[in-house]
Amino acid sequence: MSLSKEIKYSITLKFAELARQKNRNGENIISLGIGEPMFDTPKEIVDETISAINNGYTRYSNSSGLIELRTSIAEKFILDNKINIDPENIVVTPGAKQAMLLSLMSILEPGDEVINFTPCYVSYVPQVKIAEPTAIIHNIDLNKNDFTIDWEFFSKIINNKTKAVIINSPNNPSGKMFSNEDYLELIKRIENFNCYLLSDEIYEKFIIGEVKHISPGSIENIKNRVITINGFSKTFSMTGWRIGYLAAPEEIRHRIVKLAQHINTNTVTFIQKGVCNAYKINNYGLENFNKSLRKKVDFMLKVLPNVFLPPDGGIFSLLNIRNTGFDSDSFATQLLNEHNVAVTPGIGFGHNWDDHVRLSMVINSKQFFKGINLINDFISNAVK
Amino acid sequence: MSLSKEIKYSITLKFAELARQKNRNGENIISLGIGEPMFDTPKEIVDETISAINNGYTRYSNSSGLIELRTSIAEKFILDNKINIDPENIVVTPGAKQAMLLSLMSILEPGDEVINFTPCYVSYVPQVKIAEPTAIIHNIDLNKNDFTIDWEFFSKIINNKTKAVIINSPNNPSGKMFSNEDYLELIKRIENFNCYLLSDEIYEKFIIGEVKHISPGSIENIKNRVITINGFSKTFSMTGWRIGYLAAPEEIRHRIVKLAQHINTNTVTFIQKGVCNAYKINNYGLENFNKSLRKKVDFMLKVLPNVFLPPDGGIFSLLNIRNTGFDSDSFATQLLNEHNVAVTPGIGFGHNWDDHVRLSMVINSKQFFKGINLINDFISNAVK
Repeated sequence: MSLSKEIKYSITLKFAELARQKNRNGENIISLGIGEPMFDTPKEIVDETISAINNGYTRYSNSSGLIELRTSIAEKFILDNKINIDPENIVVTPGAKQAMLLSLMSILEPGDEVINFTPCYVSYVPQVKIAEPTAIIHNIDLNKNDFTIDWEFFSKIINNKTKAVIINSPNNPSGKMFSNEDYLELIKRIENFNCYLLSDEIYEKFIIGEVKHISPGSIENIKNRVITINGFSKTFSMTGWRIGYLAAPEEIRHRIVKLAQHINTNTVTFIQKGVCNAYKINNYGLENFNKSLRKKVDFMLKVLPNVFLPPDGGIFSLLNIRNTGFDSDSFATQLLNEHNVAVTPGIGFGHNWDDHVRLSMVINSKQFFKGINLINDFISNAVK
Repeated sequence: MSLSKEIKYSITLKFAELARQKNRNGENIISLGIGEPMFDTPKEIVDETISAINNGYTRYSNSSGLIELRTSIAEKFILDNKINIDPENIVVTPGAKQAMLLSLMSILEPGDEVINFTPCYVSYVPQVKIAEPTAIIHNIDLNKNDFTIDWEFFSKIINNKTKAVIINSPNNPSGKMFSNEDYLELIKRIENFNCYLLSDEIYEKFIIGEVKHISPGSIENIKNRVITINGFSKTFSMTGWRIGYLAAPEEIRHRIVKLAQHINTNTVTFIQKGVCNAYKINNYGLENFNKSLRKKVDFMLKVLPNVFLPPDGGIFSLLNIRNTGFDSDSFATQLLNEHNVAVTPGIGFGHNWDDHVRLSMVINSKQFFKGINLINDFISNAVK
């Protein structure tokens, strides 16, 4: 595909890699670029996985996933998300990333249009192009002053060719969550159009502010057109394990499984077995991690009140660097060179976000606070 | 993509699933449909993997793969395949299947043509369509009397739009291997064209006859245009672990890694660590398995001499069912219903192969022999 020549290396990976290199050279880098929770994977999952390897869960599984895992995910959906779905309509995938790609591949046809809110996860736009090179993507920017959505503008954009609306709540990189009001607006504005909602809920367990997580798949009059995407990576700190899942309407599920057969056969069988009881695990690293997220946000509100909108959820936040005069790549490069702090340029998350940089809030609080103070110094010097 | 509506469920999986269902109902099915070696994964790999989980190899890895694994694969390539390649040009993937898909995605552009030899692995044709919906596929049938290739015909097919030639030696489903003479013919006929060779060598360790395995990536005057695809699944009986790899020329490797970042991030990190020393393992199940393959072929030559061409390698073989009057799906269905033996219809491997069925040779010899005798009875009755 022509795309293979066009797409660039991920800018989120560029600064993470630069930070790693400098660390190897003995420089003490504070990396606010890393996108993975740092608590330990729960022992129960590790033990179950090892036991599954030893008990022969080492062969091909059904391309949809082990039925015992899909049954468990269906139970999780009821408990956590009020989503009532048959295990048959759940597909296990190697990561939530591939769940999104398979969903896009299964619904998009030549000339279809996609609505995407920016800033957004770096892979959404390339994935739309991989799924359907002729698809047209409409990016709708969050309001930079309060991260609200201009729903009037949404109504101007949506049309009969709109096949998919991508939602990511809590959002990477802004931390914005779709409130109940947002969903009411959305429902009102899509009801006359035949589009699917692709809801990426990978950060659902990281709630910082007052907004409650709502799964659109639980909302009565739209649930039949929602594909819910999630995974174990973030909730259980299992980023390297590559296991995600989706719940999709019947006709879409069939198409997804057929594509999955030719793209990856199945998700690693013993890892599927290892997470079968994951949703029942309590009291692991997540709770303390969430507490530390709130402390970090409080600290930023104190130190950087003018350039920072507190995230509703997720593990990232954005800084507005407009007043520094830097574009986001120069800001990140200079900050790394002068202060040994790694952040991610906003330009990676949308064309109009070159006046922001993304901070990841996953490293330990002491290091994080130090990094924020250094950023504050850097910004103060720049705006002088 | 439109393809998601067009492609059918894999016919290879249909009969395997039917056999499993009947087994669950208490019928004693002899399944010659299964495509995975049945010996145990070597203990060394299991131990290394478990140790990697316990030692924190649970986070994202580089999208190309762990450098220690790529270094190990480079050593394997020299030892086993006489392929001299920099670890930087190796990419680790979730299965050889995805290595083939990423290769096709990275080289095909609108209107490009692909040459494919049939019968072939079920996923090649759908993968070409996923990679580039407008690509044209030319299937070249093996000669049904001796599985030779009509190289004159190949020369008539290849043209300036040919971008890729797919080779799978040993071949699934026929067992055909590319001999030295085949490669000499191939080299002569591609030298004036700018096409890549995609060499899927997943069955390289299953050698039954006299033909030696040759990797085109080791051949001096074509090696710069070869993408070598392989994996751990078959050699080490790790089908459910999903780990494969490829070696590609510099410009292709870059495109592949960029695509991999948006499709799967990385292959499971602790599994990568677990196979780092795999190529050094000796004396595991593979040797006995290969012996049993030869015994099975000898048995078939005795019982079914008129409908069977012995495979050079791989774990499958084909039976010619032309004289039975059945198409391959009816043959497989009736054989399963009347004799409780599951095989795979040839139509799954190419339009012109509806007069063949595929047998997998992985189950234990006693069961296999019983199955062959039942097939012989079935054929004898049919041709009466």
